[in-house]
Amino acid sequence: VDTATLARALGAQLFGLESQEIQGVAALDAAGPTDLVGLFEPRWRAAGRHTRAGAALVTEALAHHLPAHTSRLVLADADAARAAWGRALRLLHPRPSVAPPPPGIDARAAVDGTASVHPSAAIGPFVVVGAGAKILSDVAVFAGAYVGAGVELGAGCVLHPGAVVLDGCVLGAGVFVGARAVIGSPGFGLDAQGRVPHIGRVVVGAGASIGAGTCIDRGTVGDTVVGAGAHLDNLVQVGHNAYVGENAVLCGQVGLAGGARVEAYAVLGGQAGVAGGVVVGRAARVAAQSGVTRSLPAGGTYSGHPAEENTVRLRRLVRLKRLASP
Amino acid sequence: VDTATLARALGAQLFGLESQEIQGVAALDAAGPTDLVGLFEPRWRAAGRHTRAGAALVTEALAHHLPAHTSRLVLADADAARAAWGRALRLLHPRPSVAPPPPGIDARAAVDGTASVHPSAAIGPFVVVGAGAKILSDVAVFAGAYVGAGVELGAGCVLHPGAVVLDGCVLGAGVFVGARAVIGSPGFGLDAQGRVPHIGRVVVGAGASIGAGTCIDRGTVGDTVVGAGAHLDNLVQVGHNAYVGENAVLCGQVGLAGGARVEAYAVLGGQAGVAGGVVVGRAARVAAQSGVTRSLPAGGTYSGHPAEENTVRLRRLVRLKRLASP
Amino acid sequence: VDTATLARALGAQLFGLESQEIQGVAALDAAGPTDLVGLFEPRWRAAGRHTRAGAALVTEALAHHLPAHTSRLVLADADAARAAWGRALRLLHPRPSVAPPPPGIDARAAVDGTASVHPSAAIGPFVVVGAGAKILSDVAVFAGAYVGAGVELGAGCVLHPGAVVLDGCVLGAGVFVGARAVIGSPGFGLDAQGRVPHIGRVVVGAGASIGAGTCIDRGTVGDTVVGAGAHLDNLVQVGHNAYVGENAVLCGQVGLAGGARVEAYAVLGGQAGVAGGVVVGRAARVAAQSGVTRSLPAGGTYSGHPAEENTVRLRRLVRLKRLASP
Repeated sequence: VDTATLARALGAQLFGLESQEIQGVAALDAAGPTDLVGLFEPRWRAAGRHTRAGAALVTEALAHHLPAHTSRLVLADADAARAAWGRALRLLHPRPSVAPPPPGIDARAAVDGTASVHPSAAIGPFVVVGAGAKILSDVAVFAGAYVGAGVELGAGCVLHPGAVVLDGCVLGAGVFVGARAVIGSPGFGLDAQGRVPHIGRVVVGAGASIGAGTCIDRGTVGDTVVGAGAHLDNLVQVGHNAYVGENAVLCGQVGLAGGARVEAYAVLGGQAGVAGGVVVGRAARVAAQSGVTRSLPAGGTYSGHPAEENTVRLRRLVRLKRLASP
Repeated sequence: VDTATLARALGAQLFGLESQEIQGVAALDAAGPTDLVGLFEPRWRAAGRHTRAGAALVTEALAHHLPAHTSRLVLADADAARAAWGRALRLLHPRPSVAPPPPGIDARAAVDGTASVHPSAAIGPFVVVGAGAKILSDVAVFAGAYVGAGVELGAGCVLHPGAVVLDGCVLGAGVFVGARAVIGSPGFGLDAQGRVPHIGRVVVGAGASIGAGTCIDRGTVGDTVVGAGAHLDNLVQVGHNAYVGENAVLCGQVGLAGGARVEAYAVLGGQAGVAGGVVVGRAARVAAQSGVTRSLPAGGTYSGHPAEENTVRLRRLVRLKRLASP
Repeated sequence: VDTATLARALGAQLFGLESQEIQGVAALDAAGPTDLVGLFEPRWRAAGRHTRAGAALVTEALAHHLPAHTSRLVLADADAARAAWGRALRLLHPRPSVAPPPPGIDARAAVDGTASVHPSAAIGPFVVVGAGAKILSDVAVFAGAYVGAGVELGAGCVLHPGAVVLDGCVLGAGVFVGARAVIGSPGFGLDAQGRVPHIGRVVVGAGASIGAGTCIDRGTVGDTVVGAGAHLDNLVQVGHNAYVGENAVLCGQVGLAGGARVEAYAVLGGQAGVAGGVVVGRAARVAAQSGVTRSLPAGGTYSGHPAEENTVRLRRLVRLKRLASP
């Protein structure tokens, strides 16, 4: 696209050439004349001054840190620029960076005769699809993934290489499951005989994403739930019967014990943990590495182990530091 | 089974119909007339009042929080009810919720000619079984799992999809290995040339279970050991030459450094870590997210980083909170 | 080899038989007359006294804790002995303890016609190699691994079973990737529409090693980088556009947020985390479970959350303990 069209699409004000052809997005130090770069973090200024990019998405405050040959697509502030940056990436890179198998069922896949696979779905080599599974339109199941008996994959779901969705689990439309993630593993409910049967499922809402290596246990009785639009990063652990609300965000290596509940729009920082039966309130923000041992009200910001209101905790830490000063 | 038979099997006192047919276990809000539900946590009371279940396993204290149409199988307290709940699940759901491949070797598996596979074992598609491996009776190896050269899988072992057991490792009878778990990865012993060879094995005792995505490194020299009846949750990391005693429990995302030792019946909460060469004593309980940097005596309860006796630590935290109060 | 040759190769002084044949390394309690054992940690003394080993690599201080039948290969101190131990392992166990597939492409692999695979490379069953991938000499790709389109694997790379290297990622010579590890997963950059496209790559330098189950996200724009000779243990999470310098060491379950930077020779203890955009300085040492929220200068030792200079923090903790004593 040309710079003028791009600026319109991104809601940016253009300073520079209107008809410059832009073909992709690149990093400041790797870009060439047909690339768009982004400059909306102050620490990127040095790299900005030497970029060879044809155009830059930039904040007003940083617009003069670019060479003369780079057209500027200016946005008011960093938040606006970040949002436009995502739009630019989607616009200029509409194809996924990890190529799916071609539509149809690869001859080397093992698809049960009672499974239903939409003709537009792409099933890669060494994939297993179990009895009675339902795979809707435009689904991409990469090589080596496992789709258990009775599983339902909504339209447009993507399962990266080696992803495992065990029997009976249900994924809504457009769910992404990263490589080697496991959905529906038997939970960790133990008694004197060992692990008890886990007869529940995992149900994932539309548009949710599950990172690489993440594990979501099925419910003991009843379901483990991941709400629509929730995003789980890599290596997250979700215990049996946990609940993750709509649009909640769990960063890398977060752990939810069995029956933990994270309400909609809550955000948990990396390596944070939530104890069993505990509730993280709607839109609450929990700092990285926090340990949530009691339920947290909606909307606040929390940190520490046990997790508590962030400013209360920080004030106490400051006072303690003063008390302990030599 | 009918309610009278069920009550006898669970050691519960029956109040209600004796000949009501119960076919399965269900959640309070999803149950129907042929389902058994459980009501032994006070926070479930509200759901209990509106259940449509035919029968409920319930504590004396909560028995009146059920509708009239639900037969009561009453146990004295929550501990008794929880134990009976596990028995009910096993009784009413004898078949695994994740269906194994049929017995025999799938034509799409790659089984080395020198491996020995019992005729009753089930080997799924895309499984690899290496030279000299021994797979005993009633083993189930799900699709895509890897059984290395010389591995021994005891009778009744279950390897979920994509589980990896590398060369020479030995699993006792009835061991469960979750999807994408890795047993026998080369350990993290480093020297100036990089990773040193790790020539030891991993030996897992009978009845142990290994969660999805969990990694257990082989010993550098000598073995990494997981004792009989030990249970490891998902995404646990066990370093080279670590030792996990019989019936020990490691919750999700626990990490044991190389040479760490967790004695029998110890319980480590989620995301806890144990340093190299350190011993967690028999039946010790370590709170979630604790960092064990020195050996802990048997039987106590510990928390914090560095982990210490729990009540000592909590008392100090209370005093510090008071000192720091404004 | 005989003991005299071994002593020379390890730079040790030999006390005992010169022509004793040593065939392998073993643990103190499992060794026989043709085995070499190591005794360089004081806590191993008891096991040393009863070993049946033919020879022992031992420090001067511990040399008298061995039975008379065991020849001694003596080194001055534990550091020297540890270094020699690694050399002994490499010398006596030159073949990997996890057997690779034979050279050539297994008939059950799915290799794209446009991929280039060196004849000396070993491609196991159920492996996928995508369009345009380049696999150089002496590479071993174990069963079930996934090599995406355009991936480059340098000479001597080893991908253990089920390892995933997604499209466009580049591994230098001699890189080891553990079982079920994932390199090049789409990162966790989110906006109002969900995950933004991640068009960058992961670039791994020569001689680096990536543990089992570890996940390294591709860059959003630009690359995620793991430097030459860096070692990542199991279940480590590396976010998009993070940078791990040459010879840095990340222990088990470490997490790097997007854009975190760990400079060369830095060492992060198990379960430590680094926030986005934060820098861990060259050769800095960060204790296990630390949370690095601000950049740390080169060369120091740090601990805690937020991570700070270790001795400063320990002194404060001692003072606080005193203040809080009853």
